[in-house]
Amino acid sequence: MEPSSGWDGPTFQPLVVLELASNTPQEAVAWLLSRIRDGQQNGGAELLVEQLSPGAADGGEKDNPNLFVVGASWQRLLCGAEDCGLFKEYSDGSMRGFTCANQHRFKGFTGAGDDFLSMAECQYIIKHQLEALRAKDETHVPGYSQAKLYPGKSIIRRLQSKGILVQMFPLHDKEELKRLSFSWYRTVRLSLQPLDAIRRYFGEGQALYFGFLEYFTIALLPMAVLGVPYYLFDWENYDKYVLFAVFNLVWCTVLLEVWKRYSATLAYCWGTLSRKKAFEEPRPGFHGVLGLNPVTGRKEPVFPSVSRQLRIYLVSLPFVLLCLYLSLYVMMIYFQLEGWALSVYDEDPTLWTEVLTYIPSIVYAVVIEAVNLLYRYAAEFLTEWENHRRESSYQNHLVLKVLVFNFFNCFASLFYIAFVMQDMLLLRQSLATLLITSQVLNQLMEAFLPYWLQRRRNKKMIRKVLRRRAIEEKELPLAEQVRLEADMSTYLGTFDDYLELFLLFGYVSLFSCIYPLAAVLVVLNNITEVYSDAFKMCKLFKRPFADPAGSIGVWQLAFETISVIAVVTNCALIGMSPQVKAYFPESATQLILWTVAVEHLLLGFKFILAFLIPDVPKHIRVKLAQIEFESLEALKKKKILEASKPDAE
Amino acid sequence: MEPSSGWDGPTFQPLVVLELASNTPQEAVAWLLSRIRDGQQNGGAELLVEQLSPGAADGGEKDNPNLFVVGASWQRLLCGAEDCGLFKEYSDGSMRGFTCANQHRFKGFTGAGDDFLSMAECQYIIKHQLEALRAKDETHVPGYSQAKLYPGKSIIRRLQSKGILVQMFPLHDKEELKRLSFSWYRTVRLSLQPLDAIRRYFGEGQALYFGFLEYFTIALLPMAVLGVPYYLFDWENYDKYVLFAVFNLVWCTVLLEVWKRYSATLAYCWGTLSRKKAFEEPRPGFHGVLGLNPVTGRKEPVFPSVSRQLRIYLVSLPFVLLCLYLSLYVMMIYFQLEGWALSVYDEDPTLWTEVLTYIPSIVYAVVIEAVNLLYRYAAEFLTEWENHRRESSYQNHLVLKVLVFNFFNCFASLFYIAFVMQDMLLLRQSLATLLITSQVLNQLMEAFLPYWLQRRRNKKMIRKVLRRRAIEEKELPLAEQVRLEADMSTYLGTFDDYLELFLLFGYVSLFSCIYPLAAVLVVLNNITEVYSDAFKMCKLFKRPFADPAGSIGVWQLAFETISVIAVVTNCALIGMSPQVKAYFPESATQLILWTVAVEHLLLGFKFILAFLIPDVPKHIRVKLAQIEFESLEALKKKKILEASKPDAE
Repeated sequence: MEPSSGWDGPTFQPLVVLELASNTPQEAVAWLLSRIRDGQQNGGAELLVEQLSPGAADGGEKDNPNLFVVGASWQRLLCGAEDCGLFKEYSDGSMRGFTCANQHRFKGFTGAGDDFLSMAECQYIIKHQLEALRAKDETHVPGYSQAKLYPGKSIIRRLQSKGILVQMFPLHDKEELKRLSFSWYRTVRLSLQPLDAIRRYFGEGQALYFGFLEYFTIALLPMAVLGVPYYLFDWENYDKYVLFAVFNLVWCTVLLEVWKRYSATLAYCWGTLSRKKAFEEPRPGFHGVLGLNPVTGRKEPVFPSVSRQLRIYLVSLPFVLLCLYLSLYVMMIYFQLEGWALSVYDEDPTLWTEVLTYIPSIVYAVVIEAVNLLYRYAAEFLTEWENHRRESSYQNHLVLKVLVFNFFNCFASLFYIAFVMQDMLLLRQSLATLLITSQVLNQLMEAFLPYWLQRRRNKKMIRKVLRRRAIEEKELPLAEQVRLEADMSTYLGTFDDYLELFLLFGYVSLFSCIYPLAAVLVVLNNITEVYSDAFKMCKLFKRPFADPAGSIGVWQLAFETISVIAVVTNCALIGMSPQVKAYFPESATQLILWTVAVEHLLLGFKFILAFLIPDVPKHIRVKLAQIEFESLEALKKKKILEASKPDAE
Repeated sequence: MEPSSGWDGPTFQPLVVLELASNTPQEAVAWLLSRIRDGQQNGGAELLVEQLSPGAADGGEKDNPNLFVVGASWQRLLCGAEDCGLFKEYSDGSMRGFTCANQHRFKGFTGAGDDFLSMAECQYIIKHQLEALRAKDETHVPGYSQAKLYPGKSIIRRLQSKGILVQMFPLHDKEELKRLSFSWYRTVRLSLQPLDAIRRYFGEGQALYFGFLEYFTIALLPMAVLGVPYYLFDWENYDKYVLFAVFNLVWCTVLLEVWKRYSATLAYCWGTLSRKKAFEEPRPGFHGVLGLNPVTGRKEPVFPSVSRQLRIYLVSLPFVLLCLYLSLYVMMIYFQLEGWALSVYDEDPTLWTEVLTYIPSIVYAVVIEAVNLLYRYAAEFLTEWENHRRESSYQNHLVLKVLVFNFFNCFASLFYIAFVMQDMLLLRQSLATLLITSQVLNQLMEAFLPYWLQRRRNKKMIRKVLRRRAIEEKELPLAEQVRLEADMSTYLGTFDDYLELFLLFGYVSLFSCIYPLAAVLVVLNNITEVYSDAFKMCKLFKRPFADPAGSIGVWQLAFETISVIAVVTNCALIGMSPQVKAYFPESATQLILWTVAVEHLLLGFKFILAFLIPDVPKHIRVKLAQIEFESLEALKKKKILEASKPDAE
């Protein structure tokens, strides 16, 4: 957190980098800097900002001169922390919204320059303050008559949407990053991840993802342990899987309920559980006719929600349904190929034809991955076109689209094999193929591909830097560190990571009774996932801004939906097992009716269980109630004091 | 709202009556009065209170002299309104928490003595202030060494739990009541109920109940209209009921979703939607070892929640299950009797034996009502014994117990007939018998019994009063009005009314496709219910304290549960219809599988629909967001002003 020694930059702790387009006219730059530096009472952000020295242009091409580092005085950061509604630990151990008025009663607050605010928090505050910087009476960005402004428009958002602001990112802290990576992934140990340190460096959203990954892996361990003997000793005995299915069913209900409580505990300790979300600005891509926002009364683009609904229900929904239909069609082709390959093998059983029987599955797994990727672009385009005002609403619609398709694509064939063809041997084989192929592909796409891209991109820069000093051995001058980081890929959020976990959870909870090794494979995958994710977060990407998440959000719902579907599939698998069928030798109807009745009871029981288990542990509910009660009492006392004075009105 | 003329009582508007036991020692009375009258800065309630003149004891027995009327100065009421977090309409049309500081910006606020606060609101405020009156350093109530007090204990609660305070109730307002009853039930008109006037007089909880009753009745109309031709022309043709079942299914999902929005609109206009609940005190019956409340830090009885959980899961739950089993047993006896009666009729078909076939159904309906009543007492006893700290938690546990049993008791036989015996004719007959018997019994128990009891009880009092002047023709002196009302029955809340609606909703949504006239019967019942409920609220009972409810609470959940079960039963009834069976002539298994698949799809669709339809209409969400945004902005502005002063800290 101290300014690095021997640097050639500004006189304050640099926190956030702004990169403007290299051809930005000087008047726009000067205007932006003056607005950022201006005092708050004049509507400025009151931050410190300085241009980066152009750097030694020892290569042939010229560096972009429009790189700026932003920082703030300590007092300004504290003030901003109160603005953002940051929660900090109070002297009595509870978490409270930070206020400058009683700053000294917060734990760890000792005075100027201490570690009270982590660097990630400071960067979040600066981002928040920059985004809250609004136009006053400017009609457009100076030098850009196209970049319209109106009173109350967020300047940064406009610069972003017009491509004038190329990027804005927080700086890495080499020292802290080195410490973090050593305690996280650079030593192979049997221990939990340093969630608090991850949260301190990357923010709550990241830390919750890694917390969930770890929790999920640990929760899978009993299943994996159970799975190995099943796999080793009962390879061809499908009868025994009833027990496994029952275990499965209880497991995935309890798992998610306990996670909700654990996640609430984490979020409370990190101060994001009861933190109020600020009013959301329109997302950068949002467009519409200029009107008045009914909530804020500010001028902003307005887009009728009826049009959006029409786009969603008349275009997006049919498109998704069409894609699902096509995916079904591809699946049918796969089954025909599979049947053809088997018939070839039956006619002429040689080594080559045996290899041929595996090819359709592998091709199908690759096609699924490819189609998922293609669909992803279409979904992003459509969701963008739906023109959601808020980022969160955009995210939810995107997640929903991608989830439904991915789920269908990955599981439709398994459902077909399990419940239409009722071929348990084939189901086991397909499950194994899908699981292994998608894992291998994912690890490739996720870690090695970006690593390779990054290496290629950085080679030139690294060579340039190496000429002067070895990386990480000695301190880099700020200018070079900034340029190096500006060139790194941007981390696009936890979406893909959660999606992968979602599919793995699906494989395990829906069908693992058929292939007990699934849990073992997923555990192995998750362990490598921790390392590869940690590696890419620390090494490959720009540092992301902290995301003050209080829960895993829409993903909780997605996982819960899977666990409901798991009740249905597991009941059906149990009902189809020879063991259970033996109880109803003469009547298939009886068997089905009993299976359905049991399934309904289990579903009912599951909902009751979810309702009975409180989402937030008791000791945290007490603490939250305590704070609310105290603020009510304080208000009351203040009022009585006022009323006891004569003529209080 | 003006003090009535020609009265012989206090010099302020009397709002609430306190009745102490007639043998209360004088020192206790004097202490209580002084605590109530004492200023707020001394920890008193700062209310006006006067003893009622003993009244003309012209009968033989003596009246209780310890009757007190409580009122408050207008300024004190406003201050109390702020304390309770009362919401009022602001000058811009939105609903905001009332504050004395900007009282003049609220609509309808003109100055002292206006109609700004309704009488029900004033009474609620006084109740709230009385209950918030806490002991200071008294160790017991003077004159009662048994009635222990400790600093922070609510005095009124202790007096109630020791039986010193016999009752506390708000006074009726004869004038307003007369106006209300004329616009409500004393003229038979085709118009909606005056919900706003009901809310103004009885409070939000009552008004929401009558609103729901009205909404439910109107929502049933299309079904009733559809039902009549079905009943008239297709009496023996069960084929056509598939259409009716599908209609049923959509209807009860949409019904509840729309109600949620309508109820949110009502609650918003009444200012209870976003009103914060104050911290709940322990309920009067709660007991335990004296300890510290972790939330308030105050001394209060503490009862370990583990003990409560043990009582619930080891005693209450088995008891409820046992009762369900017994109820099943009684049902089986009923079916045996029914079979026996039918066999007697078959052997010897005379008029007498035909009458005999109806007797089991009628006896069973009566037995069900009786058993429900008995069980109700047991449930109240058990829930009391579970020793819940909060009134709301007590209510929820009681509602749950009573609901499950009533549901089982009323519907088990219908489920048995429909799905085990599969006898649609018998189902129709049973449904009609159950519906009609329970309606007749209910109306008797609910309106005529209390009316008759009240008449008997009041006869003496009325005779006494009549000797001087005719009731309602001229103003009664306050003392007599108070004594008359103190003798009236206490209204026990909307529990039984909602329970009745719940069962009716069950009959209609679960099985009405079998007996389309059910909807017509329920509509008729609801119309008489409005009149009888209105009559008993206005005439038979003491005025209840207003209950600032923001929704119908746990009942929404109960009705939604029924509507989920309705999907299951309607799908099963459709699957069992001859019409559908004809599509699967050779395979019963196919039919069942299709029915189950369709049912799962419908359930999934229902959940998605419930998820997609926002619970609060958009214009109200905008208004709520607006207020939140304004308060955030105000906070920010205040902070910037403070920060711009030098040395703001």
